[in-house]
Amino acid sequence: MKSRHFAGIPQIPFEGTGTDNALAFRHYNPDEVIDGKTLKDHMRFSIAYWHSFRGVGSDPFGPGTIVRSWESGKDPVSVAKKRMDAAFEFFQKIQAPYWCWHDRDIAPEGSSLKQSNKYLDAIVAHAKKLQAQTGVKLLWGTANMFSNPRFMCGAATNPDAHVFAYAAAQVKKALECTLELGGENYVFWGGREGYETLLNTDLKREQDHLAAFMHMALDYAKEIGFTGQFLIEPKPREPTKHQYDFDVASGIAFLRTYKLDKKFKFNIETNHATLAGHTFEHEIEVAAAAGMLGSIDANTGDTLLGWDTDQFSTDVKGLTLAMVSILRAGGLGSGGFNFDAKVRRPSIDKEDLFYAHIGGMDAYALAFKTARKILADGKLSGFVKDRYSSFDKGFGKDIEKKKIGFKDLEKIAFKLGEPKPVSGRQEYLENLLNTYLHG
Amino acid sequence: MKSRHFAGIPQIPFEGTGTDNALAFRHYNPDEVIDGKTLKDHMRFSIAYWHSFRGVGSDPFGPGTIVRSWESGKDPVSVAKKRMDAAFEFFQKIQAPYWCWHDRDIAPEGSSLKQSNKYLDAIVAHAKKLQAQTGVKLLWGTANMFSNPRFMCGAATNPDAHVFAYAAAQVKKALECTLELGGENYVFWGGREGYETLLNTDLKREQDHLAAFMHMALDYAKEIGFTGQFLIEPKPREPTKHQYDFDVASGIAFLRTYKLDKKFKFNIETNHATLAGHTFEHEIEVAAAAGMLGSIDANTGDTLLGWDTDQFSTDVKGLTLAMVSILRAGGLGSGGFNFDAKVRRPSIDKEDLFYAHIGGMDAYALAFKTARKILADGKLSGFVKDRYSSFDKGFGKDIEKKKIGFKDLEKIAFKLGEPKPVSGRQEYLENLLNTYLHG
Amino acid sequence: MKSRHFAGIPQIPFEGTGTDNALAFRHYNPDEVIDGKTLKDHMRFSIAYWHSFRGVGSDPFGPGTIVRSWESGKDPVSVAKKRMDAAFEFFQKIQAPYWCWHDRDIAPEGSSLKQSNKYLDAIVAHAKKLQAQTGVKLLWGTANMFSNPRFMCGAATNPDAHVFAYAAAQVKKALECTLELGGENYVFWGGREGYETLLNTDLKREQDHLAAFMHMALDYAKEIGFTGQFLIEPKPREPTKHQYDFDVASGIAFLRTYKLDKKFKFNIETNHATLAGHTFEHEIEVAAAAGMLGSIDANTGDTLLGWDTDQFSTDVKGLTLAMVSILRAGGLGSGGFNFDAKVRRPSIDKEDLFYAHIGGMDAYALAFKTARKILADGKLSGFVKDRYSSFDKGFGKDIEKKKIGFKDLEKIAFKLGEPKPVSGRQEYLENLLNTYLHG
Amino acid sequence: MKSRHFAGIPQIPFEGTGTDNALAFRHYNPDEVIDGKTLKDHMRFSIAYWHSFRGVGSDPFGPGTIVRSWESGKDPVSVAKKRMDAAFEFFQKIQAPYWCWHDRDIAPEGSSLKQSNKYLDAIVAHAKKLQAQTGVKLLWGTANMFSNPRFMCGAATNPDAHVFAYAAAQVKKALECTLELGGENYVFWGGREGYETLLNTDLKREQDHLAAFMHMALDYAKEIGFTGQFLIEPKPREPTKHQYDFDVASGIAFLRTYKLDKKFKFNIETNHATLAGHTFEHEIEVAAAAGMLGSIDANTGDTLLGWDTDQFSTDVKGLTLAMVSILRAGGLGSGGFNFDAKVRRPSIDKEDLFYAHIGGMDAYALAFKTARKILADGKLSGFVKDRYSSFDKGFGKDIEKKKIGFKDLEKIAFKLGEPKPVSGRQEYLENLLNTYLHG
Repeated sequence: MKSRHFAGIPQIPFEGTGTDNALAFRHYNPDEVIDGKTLKDHMRFSIAYWHSFRGVGSDPFGPGTIVRSWESGKDPVSVAKKRMDAAFEFFQKIQAPYWCWHDRDIAPEGSSLKQSNKYLDAIVAHAKKLQAQTGVKLLWGTANMFSNPRFMCGAATNPDAHVFAYAAAQVKKALECTLELGGENYVFWGGREGYETLLNTDLKREQDHLAAFMHMALDYAKEIGFTGQFLIEPKPREPTKHQYDFDVASGIAFLRTYKLDKKFKFNIETNHATLAGHTFEHEIEVAAAAGMLGSIDANTGDTLLGWDTDQFSTDVKGLTLAMVSILRAGGLGSGGFNFDAKVRRPSIDKEDLFYAHIGGMDAYALAFKTARKILADGKLSGFVKDRYSSFDKGFGKDIEKKKIGFKDLEKIAFKLGEPKPVSGRQEYLENLLNTYLHG
Repeated sequence: MKSRHFAGIPQIPFEGTGTDNALAFRHYNPDEVIDGKTLKDHMRFSIAYWHSFRGVGSDPFGPGTIVRSWESGKDPVSVAKKRMDAAFEFFQKIQAPYWCWHDRDIAPEGSSLKQSNKYLDAIVAHAKKLQAQTGVKLLWGTANMFSNPRFMCGAATNPDAHVFAYAAAQVKKALECTLELGGENYVFWGGREGYETLLNTDLKREQDHLAAFMHMALDYAKEIGFTGQFLIEPKPREPTKHQYDFDVASGIAFLRTYKLDKKFKFNIETNHATLAGHTFEHEIEVAAAAGMLGSIDANTGDTLLGWDTDQFSTDVKGLTLAMVSILRAGGLGSGGFNFDAKVRRPSIDKEDLFYAHIGGMDAYALAFKTARKILADGKLSGFVKDRYSSFDKGFGKDIEKKKIGFKDLEKIAFKLGEPKPVSGRQEYLENLLNTYLHG
Repeated sequence: MKSRHFAGIPQIPFEGTGTDNALAFRHYNPDEVIDGKTLKDHMRFSIAYWHSFRGVGSDPFGPGTIVRSWESGKDPVSVAKKRMDAAFEFFQKIQAPYWCWHDRDIAPEGSSLKQSNKYLDAIVAHAKKLQAQTGVKLLWGTANMFSNPRFMCGAATNPDAHVFAYAAAQVKKALECTLELGGENYVFWGGREGYETLLNTDLKREQDHLAAFMHMALDYAKEIGFTGQFLIEPKPREPTKHQYDFDVASGIAFLRTYKLDKKFKFNIETNHATLAGHTFEHEIEVAAAAGMLGSIDANTGDTLLGWDTDQFSTDVKGLTLAMVSILRAGGLGSGGFNFDAKVRRPSIDKEDLFYAHIGGMDAYALAFKTARKILADGKLSGFVKDRYSSFDKGFGKDIEKKKIGFKDLEKIAFKLGEPKPVSGRQEYLENLLNTYLHG
Repeated sequence: MKSRHFAGIPQIPFEGTGTDNALAFRHYNPDEVIDGKTLKDHMRFSIAYWHSFRGVGSDPFGPGTIVRSWESGKDPVSVAKKRMDAAFEFFQKIQAPYWCWHDRDIAPEGSSLKQSNKYLDAIVAHAKKLQAQTGVKLLWGTANMFSNPRFMCGAATNPDAHVFAYAAAQVKKALECTLELGGENYVFWGGREGYETLLNTDLKREQDHLAAFMHMALDYAKEIGFTGQFLIEPKPREPTKHQYDFDVASGIAFLRTYKLDKKFKFNIETNHATLAGHTFEHEIEVAAAAGMLGSIDANTGDTLLGWDTDQFSTDVKGLTLAMVSILRAGGLGSGGFNFDAKVRRPSIDKEDLFYAHIGGMDAYALAFKTARKILADGKLSGFVKDRYSSFDKGFGKDIEKKKIGFKDLEKIAFKLGEPKPVSGRQEYLENLLNTYLHG
């Protein structure tokens, strides 16, 4: 991939003069070959268009702080194209092979659905050209059905069938655009698919509608030949008080209840995991156990805060635990690590966009390498395997094979007497983990 | 039901002299007939043996504070019988038609499983006699598989098959005892069925074992002719860092994944709901939507605290919302309202046990009556019904009947243009709710 | 107070046709005389200009949903005046005797500080006229030093002295405007006075600067003859990760450390209290114990959510507990109950603004009446007084009078032996509380 | 220090055969000399007697799991001595120069206060001998005034003056014992000094009593010649619903209000910091800014759990941030790092006690070394210093020197116009931090 020079983005970091360590990748060398595959192909990093190219640093108590030089043009579509040029330049310079979008991030919303679609067509054509020029690929597309006031009471779960129809039309178009750009996945995040108050809500009917919507999406994807993976992205709350896809387990319940479980996997976001009261690796493990681990929205929250901070994670330890779970589950398949993260409100410079992604990519790359070391070493997995070994033989094996019941087990219990207590060795394992992280 | 006089329990509250209002029921008149059924039969209140007759006020920073006059006797079984006499006296005096137990609450644990079973047999015989004498019935039984050190790493999810066998034998016996006492339900709460650290855990294998265990329980229940309802009681954490039945939705995911969903319903505990980040009524609605609303563990937590406080709820407003959801779902069937709640550590007097239950029963009774008024009035449900009425006709109805897809909906969206925004009226509905509660 | 008819605000609620109960005050009759004072004068309700007249229903995931008919005009100042006309009409119709503002809510920000001041002068003159016409008074004014990007790293705690100077100039002006409008208090809420990350922060220096700023404000107030009460409004976090005035206790620590404690009291917001891990009444009690209870920002959050939801409270029980504490502390003095609350994002109609305030005012009025009943009844306070009565006599009294030390107390302890345990009677007191609330 | 061999404690870890990395210190070499002082003297590690020698692995849902070989003897005092022998052996083997106790941890409670004191005398004499033999010193002592039922409603804040007297006598004795053993500090943790419900509480009176108690302690310490540092250990809640010393800031408010601020510093516990909604380093910074940083209770909680888990921390990153703050504040003086942490309930072996402390000590030692590197390097502190440099000159300096007011600052603001926005560089700084941690 050859980088180009335009839109004023500085040639940092990887072509920088190296005067400052924080400006350079230290662990992510995209071309490093591991197991016959480049690190770039292992990591499948993706840039989130919304945060990095539409985010301006606003928060509930103040408007944007970030002003980008490329945000100008004679009309919304021109601005959108110029912005996209800058974005693709960034994708290359930061050495990310993928990007992701919501429909309304990349193209302006028009005064009617038809006009919005027209704008989208123009921008998708532009994106297709840029993808071809740069080799950057689309990890996934999605439709923003939470920002516009029309979706204030939900999209597929809106009490008004008219809004449902509008949302259907929007996803139809977003699917077509994802297909057009070779997107490898399609994501549903139901930011407003939940409720504000049960006082005005028919929960069962809303869930039925949501399922009907998902089935229509599957049908239409089949019709147009979109073979990418469908993904659900759980989040417990925010913006709604309560979202239906609270966490991976809630998503599994929903998918299995409505016979959607064969067609969907999960896009797991770190910050959403912790907001739901789980660790990131917990959500990965739950999805993996159900064979539904799809993709990652790579960021972090702050467990002392109660909202989605969408920060870039530099927490190598936590990411290593997540990576162990991901690698053990066989990796992400058509998924990738999408930096659904934004620079802090006072990080107003272009340089900060680089610092942020460098930090995140480096932390993930180091976590990947450390996780590989842990798995190759085998001490940790050996410990776990050994811990359950009583189920590999005798009546333990019979339990797993469902060849034994309560009556025979009672006889065994009477015969064997009191089980011998065995230490869980948590502190030993925590120390062991640190030896991989800190020598 | 005729009350008896022994074990020193004062003849408060309902036979009291009425010198103090807080000593008397104000809203729960057990014999009041509503819709052809007594309030006692509507409410199906149950007393939790563990908290009210085994709880001593200990907490992680100090031992018990509560000393009961009836806790004496020459041997553990005699003490257990005397305690049970006091308990049944309390059940009558407090006018609760049901009780609930764990095996180890009612009978002492012996030095071997066989001896524990023998103790249990003696106590179950005593309980059967007391049930017959007093008319108090068993709402549900369960096995305590979380206190004894042998279960420190789980029971059905223990890495040691020997512990699994022990647990199987224990549930086998608990099922038999529940059957013997005419228990209407059997509950599983997996206090240690989860993990402390993923570092030493095989999550998938543990969930497989848990499911195998549940299937064995169903098989054995069938074999012995126990036809009561099986219930799962979700809780997100505590004592383990993470329990597999985090909330109702996680439970549904588990039950559906392992084909257990036709045989289980949920026992929903208020405090567990809020610990999981949900309201009590949310959990009720989720269970009801899946046809799995079973029973209630009636208590409350403190949403500013992060552990299970198991307090008696006197929050009439919150309980009214829950009651609306329960009544709308058709009630609890074979379930009931079990006071899984304990007096505060400094509430050391027998009187406090009465105050606590009177407060809880009164709050529930008032909530029940208020909820009935709300539903009879129809304003609230009418509002909700009307809000979704676009799905009762035209293309909205087609969506529900799955007779329409994205392409036709897109045409409709193009034709209809922008949906008209409609207020969700949350503040109006909150005011409306208060008119029922406060006039 | 005579109400006027313009700007299209419907003549609801109190002049309404009474077809709907939720449209009418049920407990707040402004003219009801209690203890020789009208209920209006007791409650001192105030409307928050920002939420009710500048709020549009935006949230971090979507822009505004609310469109007000009066939001039009040929230039920003004209729009601001027309909006203010509507606001004063609302103040009258809703029967609120007070209002509150931030400088930037009422007047547009200009392209320079001077121009902003000029706009402010024009609007303050308009407000003065409207105040005179309607009799509505100013409870407090404040300067918004958190929205504009210049304050992204704080105002008085900004690392750039230039921003400190800018903030000083802005508060100088806001003080002058508050004085001009007869404001009874001046409030500091340090939305950005805290930190995002300790990595770039000198906490001690920032606190020193904040204190210097407060001293300058006191000096300037004295200079211009502003004799209103200064108030600090604690909040733990949001928008910053950590605010210096986390809660009332943190505020006391700050004020005492910097010798500001004689001049400041607290403006306590319900939602900020719970975000800090406290109940509303806890914060009131802590402020009252320090003689620093000033005013109330009346709203509520959702303890299951981790951000400031600023909802109107209809929780009569919680408000009653708060009212008991407020009345016991002698009331709010120059403070009042300011509805720092906003309608939910889908509550887009003008009617919703009425519903919201009616609900809040009614709940507060009922809480006030119930608290008075509780205090008049004396059972609750009598219980508490009696509980501590051992400190009213003997060595208990000596302890309070500091006339005894460890050595004499040891002698007493040896002599008296083991203290007799006394029940805390929490459940009894909770029942007692419910008798006032629910009969 | 010469280690002894008894009580069956294995000669791991530092004398081990090194077959397992997790069994050996990797970063804590006690004899390593840094800046003319051994690492042992820098770290001043201390073992918490209660967790490591009285903890048995009980939790609210189950009794102890841990059985120690040394827990036997013919009477309570003999058992206590044998236990203490084992403890001192552990202190030596784990190379910790300090220990800490509560009075009731080391000696059994008798049937009267006098007998308890007698037991304590016997054990303190034994401890004095062991201290002399081993060179292990006492970091601090404290009185347990939260476990015994008599303290169920508080000790110094108990509504019963009799309990206050009892607590006074107990602290008198604990101070004498601390003095006898050369303790360098005395700690107050008010586990029950708070409230369960405001319904039965006089908050102001309780705080007054608490302050009176503290003054008596200071007086008595002076009288007996105890010159060690007094420390308050804040905790927000648990066991009480709300403790008066919620966090460091609340503690400062209390100490300043009652003129105790010159005599007390803070003992900061990591897990208590996060339970209060703060980071560990925040609490350190707040204490340091007030000149009140005293000592550390070294452990960690789990921010996804709402109770005190008291785990050993192996989080090198978090500890490094804390160490930077501690070193910048000039260190801990007479304080130290006391491992107020317990092995997990299933960690039942003696080896686990070693693993746990090795992990914690190693993580702290590495954090100490990394923090020194960061401070020596100067990049981070240089960044911060530079960020506030506008206050080192001109009107910025005048602000700090209190030589300027609002009027002059307004002139400056008018003259200078709009401040130039400057990036806060959070992501850069986070990357910079990682270069020290992960290369």
